[in-house]
Amino acid sequence: MKNTSPRAVCLVSGGMDSAVTLAEAQAAGFEPFALSFRYGQRHAIELAAAKRVTAAAGVRDHRIVDLDLSVLGGSALTADIEVPKDRAFEGDGADGVPVTYVPARNTVFLSVALGWAEILGATHIFIGVNAVDYSGYPDCRPEFIEAFENLANLATAAATEHGVKFQIEAPLLHSTKAAIVRRAVELGVDLGLTHTCYDPLVEPGPTPTVAKACGRCDACVLRLQGFAEAGATDPIPYAETNEA
Amino acid sequence: MKNTSPRAVCLVSGGMDSAVTLAEAQAAGFEPFALSFRYGQRHAIELAAAKRVTAAAGVRDHRIVDLDLSVLGGSALTADIEVPKDRAFEGDGADGVPVTYVPARNTVFLSVALGWAEILGATHIFIGVNAVDYSGYPDCRPEFIEAFENLANLATAAATEHGVKFQIEAPLLHSTKAAIVRRAVELGVDLGLTHTCYDPLVEPGPTPTVAKACGRCDACVLRLQGFAEAGATDPIPYAETNEA
Repeated sequence: MKNTSPRAVCLVSGGMDSAVTLAEAQAAGFEPFALSFRYGQRHAIELAAAKRVTAAAGVRDHRIVDLDLSVLGGSALTADIEVPKDRAFEGDGADGVPVTYVPARNTVFLSVALGWAEILGATHIFIGVNAVDYSGYPDCRPEFIEAFENLANLATAAATEHGVKFQIEAPLLHSTKAAIVRRAVELGVDLGLTHTCYDPLVEPGPTPTVAKACGRCDACVLRLQGFAEAGATDPIPYAETNEA
Repeated sequence: MKNTSPRAVCLVSGGMDSAVTLAEAQAAGFEPFALSFRYGQRHAIELAAAKRVTAAAGVRDHRIVDLDLSVLGGSALTADIEVPKDRAFEGDGADGVPVTYVPARNTVFLSVALGWAEILGATHIFIGVNAVDYSGYPDCRPEFIEAFENLANLATAAATEHGVKFQIEAPLLHSTKAAIVRRAVELGVDLGLTHTCYDPLVEPGPTPTVAKACGRCDACVLRLQGFAEAGATDPIPYAETNEA
C-alpha cells in the first residue's frame, strides 16, 4: 500500500535528540526519510545507533552519505584531539565554543538533506538541534535555522520553479534535556537504542559495539543531567558517573 | 618563507569557470586553498583536471573531499540518466531547469568550503558560478550567493564569536562565456588544462584520460560558443562540433 503521508527528510545521528525529532516528525503525520552521515568521525558506532533508531521507528528508507570531513581537520570529533572530560559545559573554550564543534557541520548536513528533499518531493526537513544545552554551537541557534530555511527557498529548482516552500523543523530547539527525555517517554522512543558518548568503551570484535558510555564527557554529562531532572533512569550502561 | 597574504578557499571543479575564478582570487591578492569533491559523479576525470589547474596555478594546498551523493540519486551527472545532446540550452526541461542539475550541489560545496575556511582562518570563499549561461540553475543566481553569505555569518563560531565577516566571491557571476575566455587569456590561465564535457571519449588505461570532448553536450556547446565569440581557439580536442 502506497504511503500517502507528506514526506519529510529527518537527520538521524544516533543520538537522543535526533531520535526524538524523528518521532516528532511521525507524530506530526510525516513519512520520514532518514539521512545519516559517515563523516570521518572517530565513532562510526554512531551509525549503528542511527540504524537501530530508524529500524525501531519503522523508517522505510534510511540513507547514509559518505562525507569525509576529516581531510579538512579541525575538531576533536574528527581529528586526533583529546576529548575534554570532567568540566562544566558552559564557558568551555576561551570563546564559549566547545572544542568538539565541527565547523559548519549542520550547514553541510542540512544542505545534503535539502538535495534529497528536492529529489523526494519532500518539503520538510527535521533536525534535532537544540539551542538550550548547545548554546555554544552557532549552528544550533534559531537564527541559523531561519537563515538556512531562507537559503533553501532560493537554492533549489523545486522552490524557484515550482513554488515549493521548504521548511526546516527543529522541534527540540527550545527544549531542555529533561524535556527531551520526558517527550521520548510520551512518544514511546526507546532511548536505550541511542548513543551519546564522545569517548565510549567499545567491545572489540568484527562488529564493534558500545559496552559502556564514559559518563564523563560533555555529552554524557548533559544526557545524565537530563535523565536526572526528568526523574527517569537512563537505560544505557556507564563506566562511571559523577553520581556514582 | 611564510605566506602572509590573506587566505581564501577556492572551489575548483576542473572546469573553465573555476580555473579563471582561482586566478581571480590570486590576482586579488589572496593565497588560495583549493577544494574539490569526489561526489559520485560519473566523470572522476574532472578531478584530474582540477589537479592540473591547481598545480599550474602553484596552489600549495588542494584538498579533495569524498562526498558520495549518488546514494541519493536524482541527476544525470550522478545517476544513470542519459546526457542530453544537440539542443538549445535554454528552455531545457519543461521548467527551464536542466536535467544535469544536481540538487543543492552548490549549497553543499559552499558549506564544506565554509567549514574549511573557518579552520584555515580564511574569510573569503571563491566559487565559479555564473548566472548568465546557467540561468536555469537556481544555485547560480546572485540571490543564492547573498543568502549563503548571510547564512555563513550565522553558522560559524568564527563569525558569531570572533566577529569574522565571511564573503562569498563569485567574480564570474555576471560574465558571458566569451568574457570568461578573454579573462583567462588576460590572467594567463591555460584553458587546455580544463575539462568541461559531460560525455567525453575516454582513453582506456590505468589512469583514464580524456581523448576528446564530445562537442555536442550542453557544456561543450556553451564552451565552444564562448571561444567563438571571444575570437579564440579552444586548445582541447573535440570528437565533433556543430561547426565541423
